Amino acid sequence: MASSIASKLFLGAPTTNGSTSRIGSPASDIRKLPSSTLQLPVRPRSKKLQIQAAGNTFGTYFRVTTSGESHGGDVGCTIDGCPPRLPLSESDLQTDLDRRRPGQSRITTPRKETDTCQITSGIYEGLTTGTPIKVTVPNTDQRGHDYKEMSIAYRPSHADATYDMKYGIRAVQGGGRSSARETIGRVAAGAVAKKILKQYAGTEVIAYVSQVHNVELPEGVVDHETLTLEEIESNIVRCPDPEYAEKMIAAIDVIRVRGDSIGGVVTCIVRNAPPGLGSPVFDKLEAELAKAVMSLPATKGFEFGSGFKGTFLTGSEHNDEFYVDELGRIRTRTNRSGGIQGGISNGEIINMRVAFKPTATIGRKQNTVTREKKEIELIARGRHDPCVVPRAVPMVEAMVALVLVDQLMAHHAQCNLFPVNPDLQEPVKVPRHSPAEIQS
Amino acid sequence: MASSIASKLFLGAPTTNGSTSRIGSPASDIRKLPSSTLQLPVRPRSKKLQIQAAGNTFGTYFRVTTSGESHGGDVGCTIDGCPPRLPLSESDLQTDLDRRRPGQSRITTPRKETDTCQITSGIYEGLTTGTPIKVTVPNTDQRGHDYKEMSIAYRPSHADATYDMKYGIRAVQGGGRSSARETIGRVAAGAVAKKILKQYAGTEVIAYVSQVHNVELPEGVVDHETLTLEEIESNIVRCPDPEYAEKMIAAIDVIRVRGDSIGGVVTCIVRNAPPGLGSPVFDKLEAELAKAVMSLPATKGFEFGSGFKGTFLTGSEHNDEFYVDELGRIRTRTNRSGGIQGGISNGEIINMRVAFKPTATIGRKQNTVTREKKEIELIARGRHDPCVVPRAVPMVEAMVALVLVDQLMAHHAQCNLFPVNPDLQEPVKVPRHSPAEIQS
Amino acid sequence: MASSIASKLFLGAPTTNGSTSRIGSPASDIRKLPSSTLQLPVRPRSKKLQIQAAGNTFGTYFRVTTSGESHGGDVGCTIDGCPPRLPLSESDLQTDLDRRRPGQSRITTPRKETDTCQITSGIYEGLTTGTPIKVTVPNTDQRGHDYKEMSIAYRPSHADATYDMKYGIRAVQGGGRSSARETIGRVAAGAVAKKILKQYAGTEVIAYVSQVHNVELPEGVVDHETLTLEEIESNIVRCPDPEYAEKMIAAIDVIRVRGDSIGGVVTCIVRNAPPGLGSPVFDKLEAELAKAVMSLPATKGFEFGSGFKGTFLTGSEHNDEFYVDELGRIRTRTNRSGGIQGGISNGEIINMRVAFKPTATIGRKQNTVTREKKEIELIARGRHDPCVVPRAVPMVEAMVALVLVDQLMAHHAQCNLFPVNPDLQEPVKVPRHSPAEIQS
Amino acid sequence: MASSIASKLFLGAPTTNGSTSRIGSPASDIRKLPSSTLQLPVRPRSKKLQIQAAGNTFGTYFRVTTSGESHGGDVGCTIDGCPPRLPLSESDLQTDLDRRRPGQSRITTPRKETDTCQITSGIYEGLTTGTPIKVTVPNTDQRGHDYKEMSIAYRPSHADATYDMKYGIRAVQGGGRSSARETIGRVAAGAVAKKILKQYAGTEVIAYVSQVHNVELPEGVVDHETLTLEEIESNIVRCPDPEYAEKMIAAIDVIRVRGDSIGGVVTCIVRNAPPGLGSPVFDKLEAELAKAVMSLPATKGFEFGSGFKGTFLTGSEHNDEFYVDELGRIRTRTNRSGGIQGGISNGEIINMRVAFKPTATIGRKQNTVTREKKEIELIARGRHDPCVVPRAVPMVEAMVALVLVDQLMAHHAQCNLFPVNPDLQEPVKVPRHSPAEIQS
Repeated sequence: MASSIASKLFLGAPTTNGSTSRIGSPASDIRKLPSSTLQLPVRPRSKKLQIQAAGNTFGTYFRVTTSGESHGGDVGCTIDGCPPRLPLSESDLQTDLDRRRPGQSRITTPRKETDTCQITSGIYEGLTTGTPIKVTVPNTDQRGHDYKEMSIAYRPSHADATYDMKYGIRAVQGGGRSSARETIGRVAAGAVAKKILKQYAGTEVIAYVSQVHNVELPEGVVDHETLTLEEIESNIVRCPDPEYAEKMIAAIDVIRVRGDSIGGVVTCIVRNAPPGLGSPVFDKLEAELAKAVMSLPATKGFEFGSGFKGTFLTGSEHNDEFYVDELGRIRTRTNRSGGIQGGISNGEIINMRVAFKPTATIGRKQNTVTREKKEIELIARGRHDPCVVPRAVPMVEAMVALVLVDQLMAHHAQCNLFPVNPDLQEPVKVPRHSPAEIQS
Repeated sequence: MASSIASKLFLGAPTTNGSTSRIGSPASDIRKLPSSTLQLPVRPRSKKLQIQAAGNTFGTYFRVTTSGESHGGDVGCTIDGCPPRLPLSESDLQTDLDRRRPGQSRITTPRKETDTCQITSGIYEGLTTGTPIKVTVPNTDQRGHDYKEMSIAYRPSHADATYDMKYGIRAVQGGGRSSARETIGRVAAGAVAKKILKQYAGTEVIAYVSQVHNVELPEGVVDHETLTLEEIESNIVRCPDPEYAEKMIAAIDVIRVRGDSIGGVVTCIVRNAPPGLGSPVFDKLEAELAKAVMSLPATKGFEFGSGFKGTFLTGSEHNDEFYVDELGRIRTRTNRSGGIQGGISNGEIINMRVAFKPTATIGRKQNTVTREKKEIELIARGRHDPCVVPRAVPMVEAMVALVLVDQLMAHHAQCNLFPVNPDLQEPVKVPRHSPAEIQS
Repeated sequence: MASSIASKLFLGAPTTNGSTSRIGSPASDIRKLPSSTLQLPVRPRSKKLQIQAAGNTFGTYFRVTTSGESHGGDVGCTIDGCPPRLPLSESDLQTDLDRRRPGQSRITTPRKETDTCQITSGIYEGLTTGTPIKVTVPNTDQRGHDYKEMSIAYRPSHADATYDMKYGIRAVQGGGRSSARETIGRVAAGAVAKKILKQYAGTEVIAYVSQVHNVELPEGVVDHETLTLEEIESNIVRCPDPEYAEKMIAAIDVIRVRGDSIGGVVTCIVRNAPPGLGSPVFDKLEAELAKAVMSLPATKGFEFGSGFKGTFLTGSEHNDEFYVDELGRIRTRTNRSGGIQGGISNGEIINMRVAFKPTATIGRKQNTVTREKKEIELIARGRHDPCVVPRAVPMVEAMVALVLVDQLMAHHAQCNLFPVNPDLQEPVKVPRHSPAEIQS
Repeated sequence: MASSIASKLFLGAPTTNGSTSRIGSPASDIRKLPSSTLQLPVRPRSKKLQIQAAGNTFGTYFRVTTSGESHGGDVGCTIDGCPPRLPLSESDLQTDLDRRRPGQSRITTPRKETDTCQITSGIYEGLTTGTPIKVTVPNTDQRGHDYKEMSIAYRPSHADATYDMKYGIRAVQGGGRSSARETIGRVAAGAVAKKILKQYAGTEVIAYVSQVHNVELPEGVVDHETLTLEEIESNIVRCPDPEYAEKMIAAIDVIRVRGDSIGGVVTCIVRNAPPGLGSPVFDKLEAELAKAVMSLPATKGFEFGSGFKGTFLTGSEHNDEFYVDELGRIRTRTNRSGGIQGGISNGEIINMRVAFKPTATIGRKQNTVTREKKEIELIARGRHDPCVVPRAVPMVEAMVALVLVDQLMAHHAQCNLFPVNPDLQEPVKVPRHSPAEIQS
């Protein structure tokens, strides 16, 4: 079939009724072509076909290398550059790992993993030693499915095809999916980063679900000054407003039973971020945050402060006027800057929104091609997340925390080597915002 | 005045009528307080108060370090790692520098600079030598304004305050603004990157203005398969549709005479990007692109492919089905992936949208504070861009091109060291899309 | 006891009779102070006192992160950026791991480890996939010694004291020694690097022992054009000359029974290195090599080409004159440049020498202090290498190979992106030197 | 002429009489072959043949990018990451630039340059601002010689041939030599680094000439506890001992009139280095120092502490015993460790020796080949350093200081983010060694 320019949509789906895609619509894609239809299991059946996860490094001062893969023995990370003498134990990490793990509720993938972590180096008698911290999480639920069909057909919107294009080897069947498990290392490292931030200046990194498919949490419903982790964790979809949480869960339930998937938006705030984090020019704080969260699987967009909506304002409407607060600190009355001006944090609440597409793996028939370039239909069977957003909450927090600790250390190295200038620079450890009770 | 939580808006201005901000609305901020009102010139008057621009480095293989500042003698960049024997001259760079320079039309800042560049090393007899390329652009229009007030009061939503918070020294009056001139080095380096991409695989990086304030170019008006640089450059606002271009220019003219400013959106596409660029995990192609463009001044958001709108689709609507095209290549019928799957380019058109806020410097009275923490009103006088978006077009192209060349070299080093696998990997230099006539 | 400036010797022991050190001489340090004498076991007895090994990253394009520690469950490395489709299996790595492992002969530490490696990701059906390669070597001989005294007293010339000075925590008892086991990850990664070099251009990295204590192999005894791995591996000390090998082994035997230790020199050559590797200015090839080998434990010096002896020549004696060889290639008649000119390889044999000090852990009484700053005497008991040099041979090869692959990839990315200039650049894969039969 | 293995000397000239090289000996290389003899001027005559200097970046946290070239308008550097509010002016840099500049005495090259530097950004009212510091030194003595022959024939032991092999373009005539001028940027940045070190902890970096050709300063003549800059600068060869200085100067004078060149050794010490600098594994302090100094032009070897001589000691002779000094600090009686144990500074004096080969450019006839692979004789005419070692002194100091500041910032970021442990870690700013009067 020839390429049709008209069928190429840019910046996606116009309306929310979802019927724009000529080919991908439910009516059209369930054609009966039994001879070329593959029943595609979601998880591998054989250890012979191994899935390779990637293990790169994030950060300059506080460096995290994740490793392991869905079908190997374990996953985890190595954290290099952690400050010494920080009280740390597995339980500090487990809280966030539990928020990330599969099978935590009916709206997540039923893969069963406890994701219990083990710290095998870098800790001595409950304190970090300054040498690398190695965190390991064993894989326990590897069903050993047969992956034969998967090794032939490219799953639409997965990493299958691009891995082959890049590496020229037919081995990486599940790049995209294995990444889901790869984020364990990020979440574990992020928990360490969050602890450092909390201890250093009462800084809190808190994310929640603000949109699931068509259910959008209106602005103003959540008060970022007082938002607590408890409010977010009070329901399985991680939306701090109980009413909207119900609607979101209902939306996921509908799509789940249809074998389809939906996406959404995670909002993340940073409370009591020290002023001065970030660098001019290429390493602006918003640039680092954008890279960090856009490296999570399934992300499609990032905005902070006024975001895309800010483009509809004039400068006089958009600018954040300064004032001096009751404690004599320079503050802004509004926060369209999202806590960042000129690439550097200004002490106000940092906020951002991250768009997640619907999970690519669905239990519905789709047209695709084999690696031998034969057109074919396939149905992925088995377990997948109907909506990745609730589990993405701790992932976003982790990436944001990793950026902040890295920038904090960069700032400390350069700007706190010699005594600060108290006229212009703020002493740390004075929280600007009322700290909520988070991971005490 | 005490901090008011209610006045803190998150993710900005809800509707497009612009009247949401209680404090920042035009009616309320022109209070008469003559004794504490500053007349703030936009540009400095004295060489004694120097502005320091930052000069960091971008890229790993193809490394660009920008340097210089608005008020020093010159600005420019050093490009490290450029392939040798590439035909290159100043005119290759000047085209894009002319698209970026101030004073190019009535809708840009009237600062007069020809921005004529000079290559002082790294070129011999019209060919790159492989050693660093140094590009210099002299500053010619430095008015020497008096910047005394500026050194006292923080301009709202500028980098003034955060530079002081970070560095503890009252010298960096115009961080944010000086960044505008800093982008010269980026645009020059980006022109080199674009030339490499064009020569290597016919890859084209093309950006245009798709929104100015409330004027939005509807989807589908621009055909990304055939879009040309000429269409974009046919008008001063750089929107390829003449009708919408007129509306955008009119919108800027209105705001310009009022001394206010507006923002907008730049759309950027990459045609004939080689498949296989980008890396799994932290260095995904979309993550690198997000960081690159979010490091430009005044950016507030980034999305690619289906973007934020994609969150309103189901998986079955969103997935891009594969097919085999008439040349035997694996393609996708739709492109909600935006040319990137699993963090790696798939050969389809890469597309993205970047949000720019309205310019912070405006010719209207605003409330602010001095560095001595005294509340004050100020009016910035002088020259500024009423809408930065038309000049941002070559900046976005430059950052995107820098990412692509860096990733191309990373890919070449790892995956082309040994012969490719022709069954799965595509030989380069076969453009997938009809190449438009760009920078021949 | 007061500090005595006079006792501080710089650049060590002048003559080879070893009697220069007033305090450290055997006669003076065996004073009888039983009440404060510690019996220091060389290896830990308790799992409660854990030793933390560091796990940093080496390389820019071919990146190796080592991890694990002597007393944890395993050691190993993660290799990021390896070219895909390289034939690779555990046996490729095991050869070098066996050359490095303890207990391989009577002149190495009697710790018993088979050091059997396992590749748990990055390989599929005998080929590398392009994603990270994870190599694990389990620790099997952990005796669980009591390390209580060690946690109190600083062992002279170990990392004990400096780890405490840096990290401020009393946990890292055996930094220096644990590093010995840390090199497993280096050697494993180096074996992969050597395979790439061999396959790419017939490049061979070969090291051997050229000095043990006072036994020095004279220049000219070994012919670097024809030297083979077999010659080196024909004896337990890894000196290719049988006669000198015997003398070296005898020297080690003498010192071994006395519980003392000796050092020596490892010479390393690179045959058929592609011309053009290395970069001008900071990343010169010799600078990268120097850093690489000087990061190995116990190294004290590095020289290449004419080395320190070259300082005794005049320019006219030292310069390597060019000529054209029988195959029409530009060569040098002599090789005082050591295969590197202007920081870039010239195709001649790269050669270097690395000095290793005598092992710090000895079975003799030494004066030291406790962490509570009490002066004390201690005797380390147990197992140690009387001379680390024979086992250092594969370590040096590994570090040199890692540098070369990293530089090869950097060079390939920059200079081979476009077709080479055949007039000046040499096509790869034409070995200049007769290749020996190494790791076929 | 066929390749002769026998003529390949490894690790250079055996004895100090200098007559080992069959081909390169003075007697044999002045053969009369007028038809193919080139008169090679040392400096270029035409601006058309430009020399490209490289401009890479050194350091991770304190980053220096040097730029410019011998024949462009200027040379210099950009320093990124400098702590803010450091008092700094051009005169701080000029002292070291004057020690490096050509024409400073009869034993250096007669090229006349004042090397007057200008800081064009990063300083405001005498204080660093935290943003990049740009240092520029104009070139004034460019004679514009004709470089035509040079563009044809490869100068022996220069970078001429390897640049062509790497880049495949015949433009880089004088890589090696242009590097000499490139070091201006290093020395300028090093002066900033030295000022930071001095201010932070009274740390001093001091180098001197300890060998010129056969004239070796015996150990013990210089007391490193009390050595001053004044002693070193009291003579033109920079040897603190007047008697040996005279001998060295005489040796240079002899070789200078013969148009030949000689090499030597620079010794460098660091006094009052804070304990704790450096990292375990790959980034050991000695590894970073080795890379830094081995990136200087003409270096052939590096050793620290006991160095190569330490290989002749036994462990019981070599180990540095600990004691507690009168101020209650843990010290070592001897310093064969060279101030570094386990890759981390221990507070003792860091010491190292760097070998420099004789300058490659000599005024004597040499055999070489043209770029067209024709064998030829050439004589370089004009100006060169008969012995580069006196001018290398500030270069070595600069590279060592850059490493230390980079490591200091890394250490401060990681280990001083939270309060130190006073039991094990030393508060900074307590000099261990009597500070000499250096660059007050």
